[in-house]
Amino acid sequence: MILTVTLNTALDLTYRVRSLRPHASHRVSEVIERPGGKGVNVARVLAALGHEVTVTGFAGGGTGRAIRERLAGVPGLTDALVPVAGATRRTIAVVDELSGDTTQLNEPGPQIAPTEWGAFLDHYEELLAGASAVALCGSLPPGVPVGTYANLVRAARSAGVPVLLDTSGEPLRRGVAARPDLVKPNADELAELTGSHEPLRATQDARRRGAHAVVASLGADGLLAATPQGRWRATPPARVRGNPTGAGDSAVAGLLSGLVERLPWPERLARAVALSAATVRSPAAGEFDPAVYEELRGRVAVTGVASAA
Amino acid sequence: MILTVTLNTALDLTYRVRSLRPHASHRVSEVIERPGGKGVNVARVLAALGHEVTVTGFAGGGTGRAIRERLAGVPGLTDALVPVAGATRRTIAVVDELSGDTTQLNEPGPQIAPTEWGAFLDHYEELLAGASAVALCGSLPPGVPVGTYANLVRAARSAGVPVLLDTSGEPLRRGVAARPDLVKPNADELAELTGSHEPLRATQDARRRGAHAVVASLGADGLLAATPQGRWRATPPARVRGNPTGAGDSAVAGLLSGLVERLPWPERLARAVALSAATVRSPAAGEFDPAVYEELRGRVAVTGVASAA
Repeated sequence: MILTVTLNTALDLTYRVRSLRPHASHRVSEVIERPGGKGVNVARVLAALGHEVTVTGFAGGGTGRAIRERLAGVPGLTDALVPVAGATRRTIAVVDELSGDTTQLNEPGPQIAPTEWGAFLDHYEELLAGASAVALCGSLPPGVPVGTYANLVRAARSAGVPVLLDTSGEPLRRGVAARPDLVKPNADELAELTGSHEPLRATQDARRRGAHAVVASLGADGLLAATPQGRWRATPPARVRGNPTGAGDSAVAGLLSGLVERLPWPERLARAVALSAATVRSPAAGEFDPAVYEELRGRVAVTGVASAA
Repeated sequence: MILTVTLNTALDLTYRVRSLRPHASHRVSEVIERPGGKGVNVARVLAALGHEVTVTGFAGGGTGRAIRERLAGVPGLTDALVPVAGATRRTIAVVDELSGDTTQLNEPGPQIAPTEWGAFLDHYEELLAGASAVALCGSLPPGVPVGTYANLVRAARSAGVPVLLDTSGEPLRRGVAARPDLVKPNADELAELTGSHEPLRATQDARRRGAHAVVASLGADGLLAATPQGRWRATPPARVRGNPTGAGDSAVAGLLSGLVERLPWPERLARAVALSAATVRSPAAGEFDPAVYEELRGRVAVTGVASAA
């Protein structure tokens, strides 16, 4: 079983409006409701790829109930979320019909009480015992210590479970120092971590900070990997148009499934890039198109990269 | 018991953001969640005034459950909402911290099935038997016939229950023709109904179309009433600053409570204007400040108005 941790789960709402104008009133023509938070997205892609996956983190209130009801319908996915008194946040993506552009509104997460946090830690240790890999994903809700991911990385390493970290800012900086097996920052997160806007230099720097392997997601340019086995760049066969929401989470699912299947790095990267592109091409945000995925997988260019000077 | 009907109930969310910018990402600093829809707002004000009130209409899904959980905590209020398969809509008011201006996003209501509509009609007839007055409030969800309010007005009149109608557009036009005891349009709704932008002329015209009494809400200018007993203008003592959300619903509650208490028209209007102003002045949208209400009630100017030429 692959374990994904989403401490700040979300009920993701997508609203379609004609054109968002500040201080006006808008009729929403379409509402799409999905369980969200990065680790939840990763888990759904893993389940779609045929992996057994367990989701943990926190869920509470009516929004938490909505998430759990929807996760119950996903084959291969086990809900091991820890109930909390506060309500799971909503995120709202308002899509303009005219321009296709999106305006994002993100609620704050619920305040996590110390007893709830303690309950999660016990649960996490138990789940690690049955996990072939673990992904720690996304932001931290209020009440969760900023150094949390470092502790969760150490617990995974103690249990002998490979651990992937996908977060940003101070939680990423502290988490990297605990030596996770893999981090997957995007270009902004990588620059914030390392101070360098040059991706190759920055991925190498992130490894020096503690990550065994670093895979940077560079949007339409694909992935750049710096690993103990070598450095690669993996690029999609053509520029992909569509909705990039969830593309990074699909890349994480590709990397994680490749890890537990012990694929060589170039195959893991090809899978991650193809999944990511198939997510951009899917009409629904955060879903991927299996036919597009299969078609793209053999056409991703993976090339070795020389070390930065 | 006073009955309020809200066919298109809502879970009203208020989001505070620094400044809403289209196509950007925003952190919501504060979320307020309230049961909404005009008739629900009217009911909460009536309950706060000490009346026994029953709420009916439709509720469904997680959002419907959230509304019902919150209504359960209101003393004097009885929940007689009819369950439906579809989910109750959300409305989102995004308030800019910098300007204080509000951007509104309104989800569509749930599709009401014919069997659900039939269940409501049976329920409505039963509830009328115990009602001293009924308010029919707000928009119609998909699946509910546009002539619905006309039927509900006739059923109330057959049962000998005074009926107030507060809606807009075609449902108002058809509902007025069924001769409700009172309609409470705002200036825009009144102009749409009558084709006249001159409020005095328009209120008289609305009476000719079937309403026994018409009370138009004119924003900061207060109320203008055309009734079988006479015509009055009721104005607050000073211009009131604040959030006008729910002010019209508070006016409806004032008029309805005055009706069942058999107050003379000038007192009903003074109460409605004072409640409305106390709602604008309350920090939370749709709540009213009881101290402000008591203080303003004696200071509303109610003056007789001559007929329009």
